[in-house]
Amino acid sequence: MAQKVRIALDAMGGDFGPAVVIPGADIALERHPDTEFVLFGDEAAIRPLMKQRPRLTAAARVVHTDVVVRMEDKPSQALRRGRWKSSMWLAIDAVKKGEADAAVSAGNTGALMAMAKFNLHTMPGIGRPAIAGLWPTLKGDSVMLDMGASIGADAGHLVDLAVMGSAMARVLFDVVRPTVGLLNIGVEEVKGLESVREAGKFLREADLKFLDYIGFIEADAIGQGAADVIVTEGFAGNIAIKTAEGTARQITDLLRGAMARTWRAKLGYLLAREAFRMLRDKLDPRKANGGVFLGLNGIVIKSHGGTDPEGFAAAVDVGYDMVRYELLNKIRDTLLRHAREEAEAGKMGGVAS
Amino acid sequence: MAQKVRIALDAMGGDFGPAVVIPGADIALERHPDTEFVLFGDEAAIRPLMKQRPRLTAAARVVHTDVVVRMEDKPSQALRRGRWKSSMWLAIDAVKKGEADAAVSAGNTGALMAMAKFNLHTMPGIGRPAIAGLWPTLKGDSVMLDMGASIGADAGHLVDLAVMGSAMARVLFDVVRPTVGLLNIGVEEVKGLESVREAGKFLREADLKFLDYIGFIEADAIGQGAADVIVTEGFAGNIAIKTAEGTARQITDLLRGAMARTWRAKLGYLLAREAFRMLRDKLDPRKANGGVFLGLNGIVIKSHGGTDPEGFAAAVDVGYDMVRYELLNKIRDTLLRHAREEAEAGKMGGVAS
Repeated sequence: MAQKVRIALDAMGGDFGPAVVIPGADIALERHPDTEFVLFGDEAAIRPLMKQRPRLTAAARVVHTDVVVRMEDKPSQALRRGRWKSSMWLAIDAVKKGEADAAVSAGNTGALMAMAKFNLHTMPGIGRPAIAGLWPTLKGDSVMLDMGASIGADAGHLVDLAVMGSAMARVLFDVVRPTVGLLNIGVEEVKGLESVREAGKFLREADLKFLDYIGFIEADAIGQGAADVIVTEGFAGNIAIKTAEGTARQITDLLRGAMARTWRAKLGYLLAREAFRMLRDKLDPRKANGGVFLGLNGIVIKSHGGTDPEGFAAAVDVGYDMVRYELLNKIRDTLLRHAREEAEAGKMGGVAS
Repeated sequence: MAQKVRIALDAMGGDFGPAVVIPGADIALERHPDTEFVLFGDEAAIRPLMKQRPRLTAAARVVHTDVVVRMEDKPSQALRRGRWKSSMWLAIDAVKKGEADAAVSAGNTGALMAMAKFNLHTMPGIGRPAIAGLWPTLKGDSVMLDMGASIGADAGHLVDLAVMGSAMARVLFDVVRPTVGLLNIGVEEVKGLESVREAGKFLREADLKFLDYIGFIEADAIGQGAADVIVTEGFAGNIAIKTAEGTARQITDLLRGAMARTWRAKLGYLLAREAFRMLRDKLDPRKANGGVFLGLNGIVIKSHGGTDPEGFAAAVDVGYDMVRYELLNKIRDTLLRHAREEAEAGKMGGVAS
């Protein structure tokens, strides 16, 4: 790893393109001055926004392209139109070529995943990549995956998710043996849970040194901070995280409405303003922005498309942390140890029989 | 339907058995004096609780049994141990025999569903039963199904869910053509969504008279009241509703903590107490208690196992409404119209070809 953390940005991605990406990068740079950026996109749109930001201008290089992957492009369209030349592709390609340590894009998820898979390939031993996100809980944060990279999962894929998620939790939470739970529903003997049960059985019996499998977790326990890592397949994972976002917004709306109804409530609100500010801060969805693509030979971060500069900066922060604390090496290391532990278990089995 | 609404109660179900069921029934009876109860369970436990409640005593009959399905019993165990004789079985059986119009139990979901299926059977044309629940939104309530009766769903089952859910919404919300959305994730061209897409295509093209299909809905839109009926398969549905419950509890906890930190916040809380009470009221999970088993030849309602008398009363209320507004007839009617519309469409197709 270079001394500086080098981040490639798809300057055109997201609902607002450079108008959010450039100020977002500037905020992230203030927090991590040891960052260097390569910005891919339309120079005519990027330059004017850079001019007002001398700090960013000094730390960033702009590479022009006028090909942009649109938010509504399907992955196949995006690959057809944007391969080799779009801002999204070039940001990923910079990681592939070793010119950047991570790529960040607010562009459309399907296209970003397709391009990342196509260009970076999955790590040896990993069948399918996943998207991991942060879930704010009463105890801090949990890593949640898969948030929608692929639908459905057999037991093997769920174990891969547990292994990769635990590596990410080691990076982020600085714990040696993160707790891992498998998301499940509380109904016994229902068809279709075989994969979850099988993965649970494997993780319990394997008793891996780098993750502490604590069993099934129901969705209402996630917010209590039941585990450092929550593992589920992509459809349910995406629905869980979006449900949490939606519910938080719904309650915030209700609270705002309730506090504006009477003069007593308004006065109460004024007095408790500091408390409300803290609450809003804790619930701020921008802070948990940044989906990490796991299982690829390179770090790619997906920012929400509709976020503001503060939210985009949070996604860049996630990329920075992943590079600084060597996520990829930790995943590789974990996979190796996993393979070794499995091999040893196999040998012992052979001796016993 | 008898003039009175006759409800069979599994008096022993749930974490607290008669201690919650009896006072819960009494609360529900106060709201709907035209209810009659049959209570199945241990007379020695039930009678003392009845004595203090003359109103309930006058409206209820007790049928003794000392066989109880335990909360930890697997469905197969429950059937083996409890068939013909447990309080849960007898409550369902009262519906089967026409001695009650609905059964309500706070016992374990898997056992209740297994017994209900075994005894009542699915309606003609319905392959698998579902559990539907109420989801409080900014606009009121939505019907959400399946909440976990079975895992996985092909397009045909999703259409069944849409048809049954719309009938329930007609009963509850008094709308002629409820809006129906299919829960989906925003990632295009991902494998595994074929069933959802196929069901969407069918519902759009069929343009049914008794439901207004409005397309895919992402999970963060549920709380905004995006549709009267939200349709998804059981694993994702269970995770969605539990995530919403968990997030609501988490935010309530955070809010309580924030309001207790400083004297200014405490004073603010006192002034805005009425507003907080309203909010708590809106978020009260007990109000949305009562999972409705759909697709069976009889009405069975599942109450949360850990609820209090107020929550159990809400589940009884749901049962009452389902009987009073003839849910079963409306589902049958809807299924018939559905079959007729399909047949007509087939005939037209035949003419055209």
